[in-house]
Amino acid sequence: MATIHLDDLKPGMVFELGRVTVDRDEIIEFAHRYDPQPIHVDEAAARASIYGGIIASGWLTVSLCMRRIVDGFLARAASLGSPGCDEVRWLKPVRPGDTLTYRAEILEVTPSRSKPDRGVARVRYEAVNQAGELVLRLTGMQMLARRPAGTA
Amino acid sequence: MATIHLDDLKPGMVFELGRVTVDRDEIIEFAHRYDPQPIHVDEAAARASIYGGIIASGWLTVSLCMRRIVDGFLARAASLGSPGCDEVRWLKPVRPGDTLTYRAEILEVTPSRSKPDRGVARVRYEAVNQAGELVLRLTGMQMLARRPAGTA
Repeated sequence: MATIHLDDLKPGMVFELGRVTVDRDEIIEFAHRYDPQPIHVDEAAARASIYGGIIASGWLTVSLCMRRIVDGFLARAASLGSPGCDEVRWLKPVRPGDTLTYRAEILEVTPSRSKPDRGVARVRYEAVNQAGELVLRLTGMQMLARRPAGTA
Repeated sequence: MATIHLDDLKPGMVFELGRVTVDRDEIIEFAHRYDPQPIHVDEAAARASIYGGIIASGWLTVSLCMRRIVDGFLARAASLGSPGCDEVRWLKPVRPGDTLTYRAEILEVTPSRSKPDRGVARVRYEAVNQAGELVLRLTGMQMLARRPAGTA
């Protein structure tokens, strides 16, 4: 498959990134390491909280999204890393057993002024759960190489 | 230690969140699971890249920050979760062996209009490496309970 360069992306293009079922053990393991709040690791405390049960760390939801971005897009793109994100929104709790479907939409494509070999795409990533609810919206910047002159 | 409620936070307050040395194995392990780009998992490919060697996934840098936020702040706060972040910036690469020092500064404190028992603090988190370079800036929202009436 041809490598995707900055020049191949246009605003409005959509990439379907596949789905993942969120595993209870992974929720707890991730949280023990990176986000050990009771709502993520302690069933009794989570049940007594406003969430009514254990929910995934928002950063696990983002990390699972990142994995889908790599597998479904960056693995065949001339990625040069990312300067950051403009927006991360956790819109609904993610619970054990939820199945999340991820997609990406290209918002803007901006060649660099100072470095003619690269540029940045602004991309909106979204995750929807099995009930059709939007649970994550993330607007990120993806740096990509431009297609070398004379190639197609 | 008294629990921190929304009412206890004021703009300008700073929380020092401690430091962490970023482990090479953890960089690779995290990336294999959540961000398997060559610059995070493949030494030869990373050396040939614009980064000149393996760098941490930006989401690992954020996850390590989250752990410091929990240990240094949320563990003694009446946290109700987070609706999201407004800004994530990876300003410098994070490399194996780097020591990151994290801090938090309260930017705004806004009681909820619809739910009088809670509110949101906007917080800027920063990580600085051992050379004094800012490597991560993250502006997030933290939902907190208000102090129950009649308590101090």
